[in-house]
Amino acid sequence: MSQVRRVAILGSTGSIGRQAIEVIEAFPEAIAADVLVTHSNAELLIEQAKRLRPRQVVIVHAALYHRVCEALAGTGIRVAAGQEAVLAAVQQPQVDVVLAAMVGYAGLLPVLAAAQAGKHIALANKEALVVAGALITTEVRRYGGCLIPVDSEHSAIFQCVAGEAHQSVRRIILTASGGPFRGMNIDQLRHVRPQQALQHPNWKMGEKITIDSATLMNKGLEVIEAHWLFGLPAERIEVVIHPQSIIHSMVEFSDGSLKAQLGLPDMRLPIQYALTYPQRLSGPWPRLDLLQVGPLTFEPADRNTFRNLALAYEALRLGGNMPCVLNAANEVAVQAFLKERISFPTISRIIEQCMSEADFIGQPGLEDYIETDRWTRQKAQALIETS
Amino acid sequence: MSQVRRVAILGSTGSIGRQAIEVIEAFPEAIAADVLVTHSNAELLIEQAKRLRPRQVVIVHAALYHRVCEALAGTGIRVAAGQEAVLAAVQQPQVDVVLAAMVGYAGLLPVLAAAQAGKHIALANKEALVVAGALITTEVRRYGGCLIPVDSEHSAIFQCVAGEAHQSVRRIILTASGGPFRGMNIDQLRHVRPQQALQHPNWKMGEKITIDSATLMNKGLEVIEAHWLFGLPAERIEVVIHPQSIIHSMVEFSDGSLKAQLGLPDMRLPIQYALTYPQRLSGPWPRLDLLQVGPLTFEPADRNTFRNLALAYEALRLGGNMPCVLNAANEVAVQAFLKERISFPTISRIIEQCMSEADFIGQPGLEDYIETDRWTRQKAQALIETS
Repeated sequence: MSQVRRVAILGSTGSIGRQAIEVIEAFPEAIAADVLVTHSNAELLIEQAKRLRPRQVVIVHAALYHRVCEALAGTGIRVAAGQEAVLAAVQQPQVDVVLAAMVGYAGLLPVLAAAQAGKHIALANKEALVVAGALITTEVRRYGGCLIPVDSEHSAIFQCVAGEAHQSVRRIILTASGGPFRGMNIDQLRHVRPQQALQHPNWKMGEKITIDSATLMNKGLEVIEAHWLFGLPAERIEVVIHPQSIIHSMVEFSDGSLKAQLGLPDMRLPIQYALTYPQRLSGPWPRLDLLQVGPLTFEPADRNTFRNLALAYEALRLGGNMPCVLNAANEVAVQAFLKERISFPTISRIIEQCMSEADFIGQPGLEDYIETDRWTRQKAQALIETS
Repeated sequence: MSQVRRVAILGSTGSIGRQAIEVIEAFPEAIAADVLVTHSNAELLIEQAKRLRPRQVVIVHAALYHRVCEALAGTGIRVAAGQEAVLAAVQQPQVDVVLAAMVGYAGLLPVLAAAQAGKHIALANKEALVVAGALITTEVRRYGGCLIPVDSEHSAIFQCVAGEAHQSVRRIILTASGGPFRGMNIDQLRHVRPQQALQHPNWKMGEKITIDSATLMNKGLEVIEAHWLFGLPAERIEVVIHPQSIIHSMVEFSDGSLKAQLGLPDMRLPIQYALTYPQRLSGPWPRLDLLQVGPLTFEPADRNTFRNLALAYEALRLGGNMPCVLNAANEVAVQAFLKERISFPTISRIIEQCMSEADFIGQPGLEDYIETDRWTRQKAQALIETS
């Protein structure tokens, strides 16, 4: 790479953020951490800052500001706090790449700010696109930035469509491991506990996404994300269960040819790809050896048992603010499941109830999304309390 | 496609040629047969000409010239005969694309002529590149033509490297079905008969290539072909047995990411791709349904039992005229095996003997290839007679 790319990591202490730091440390001549942002894990932020020496850190939870300042005193690292500081940081001219790796709806405003600054955005936060895909993709185009997916599935698709004309793409086939509850029926799902849901067979990820993988909502959100990234309607985005997580996704072209991207289930690979794109750098990570993998298999996704996937398709077909409702209800319901306040199948019931009661807005603006999100969270909370 | 592409099909009555005609008939607005060339199957040539109405036909075996003239009298289709007429036909300005689908060494001079006329060459005849890859690729570049592979493996690789930088390619992984004798040991191979070798598990192909698939020489020739098409040394071209023939080949990139191209084992797909490239057209062919395929598996290739593969790697490493020796000895030995004059394992012994006795020429010109081919055929024939 001709010069070092300076990265702002939003969510540096989370699962993606920590792996991004491993990537940055593996390629000191190509990538550097310029800004580290975390919500409230001040101690890890401090440790990361001392090691990586970014220009700036931001702690969103302002009560921890003084703790961070104190710990980094004398290092020359600028410390800021609060949500506004995040929005300012991603727009700074020193930042070449914004890695959006915060969890959930919290990613929306920073991603929008990065888009409006024309940044190269490495997008791990799928919820931003789920909630406000039309707005974000419009702003990316308007300000001349780019959006490189970090999700392994979308990274796979992005790689498979390289060098191909958009009109040649017939279908996207998202692969899904099926999660820890693959093959279970609804009766069995009633009794699963958070600890079981957190045991993902192939991927080591954060809590929220791991539960979403168990419910297949993660795949549903990915369908919506794929719609915005690759400009295809719901009926041309399919989900296939591939329990081995070796084929990360596929594209079928108009002539019937399919391209697939394969690799070990290791998020450092798509993170690296998104940060260094269009360069491919040789890293120290373990490599896929096809002779060591067992048979690769495919099964249909069970949308009846795993209702969240059907609900996500429904939200995408309805459009407007419905994916925002879906996402907010899901975030609240997942937290309630993690706290053992609702059962696993109740997650879907709460989302469905919110979708059926929400006011539909066909062409929402940013304010509409914010209001829809607020209303839905309140509604979902109320449903949980009475469930 | 903006205008109809006019194709010269060299080998129109062979397996690839006949499937190419199916492709042409499926896309009348995109592709047309301009010239049909066959060696000696006059009756099928006449039938094809009456149906497709090409501008010209060429029958290589000149004794059949009058028969073809007579049958096509009054159609307005020009008839020519002999090898020289083939070379003239591929260079005609009316020809946009040359589909090189003749068998074996016979493809060399026509492919060279097409290259020197700057044509778009759809290359099914791998032997031309095996014998004289340096010469052909140099001429393609010099005269501004292009070489699009038809072999399903090379078509797969060609598709996987689209949009990628050459320096990002770490390895090519050619998949092989393993043929009908996969898993056999050398004692078992001593007793196999031509009829068994002609039963390919997945692909319907001509006789010569089907025997080459059974010996793994086909894969060895593909390794050499891949070297010339994609500019990688032998040690970065690997062979993996994939008995299902669904993944047609793969590319590993420098960052550890792999891309694969998948499809049904149907040659019409890569033929169509090579004829219409860079367009992908939606055809009437059956499509791959991942939910209908069984598990996809991978095994190492057994180069000890299937010696031809090891010999091909050796010929590529030695370079110069050695691949030409390999190819000529193989063509003669395969014919002898088909006539039950030698055993299956003797094919390799004859090739090895020829390679060890041939004069090595490091930088051969066209005359050297012709002489090497002539010497080797004579040598191989002599070895067969004394075996």
